[in-house]
Amino acid sequence: MTLYRVAIHITPRQGLLDPQGKAVAGALYSLGFGGVKEVHVGRHLVVETDAADAGAAADSARSMCTRLLANPVTEDFEIESAVPR
Amino acid sequence: MTLYRVAIHITPRQGLLDPQGKAVAGALYSLGFGGVKEVHVGRHLVVETDAADAGAAADSARSMCTRLLANPVTEDFEIESAVPR
Repeated sequence: MTLYRVAIHITPRQGLLDPQGKAVAGALYSLGFGGVKEVHVGRHLVVETDAADAGAAADSARSMCTRLLANPVTEDFEIESAVPR
Repeated sequence: MTLYRVAIHITPRQGLLDPQGKAVAGALYSLGFGGVKEVHVGRHLVVETDAADAGAAADSARSMCTRLLANPVTEDFEIESAVPR
């Protein structure tokens, strides 16, 4: 078993309301960032877990997302990377 | 001007207390993910902004982080990518 560091992105599903993103976009615009068109706010998780290899670590992270970390109705998730610690 | 999609990670600074991460790690362990050692919970932002080029888009995002998005005392940020939309 090796310790892997798995990075996960969880984002609001496209097309669903993202009030936090809208609020941040408005605040950035007010601060003078006039080029800002849209902001999406999601979560970035780093999970350190023992696994046999990188594929097993990613599979385990996928299962964590469906069982606990992501809301299947409103959120999408993506395993960004799984690298040995 | 081109529309760029900039992805930003904001994470709790290493060594600082991360109660949310600890809670998630405990919950994963209870669910049967016995290999989980540590979890860090941060934010993943996607900002769509007009910029002259990818470097300018990343610079602008860096400035957004220091001025609004990240807490300079407790959080680190990283510009993950800046790609044309």
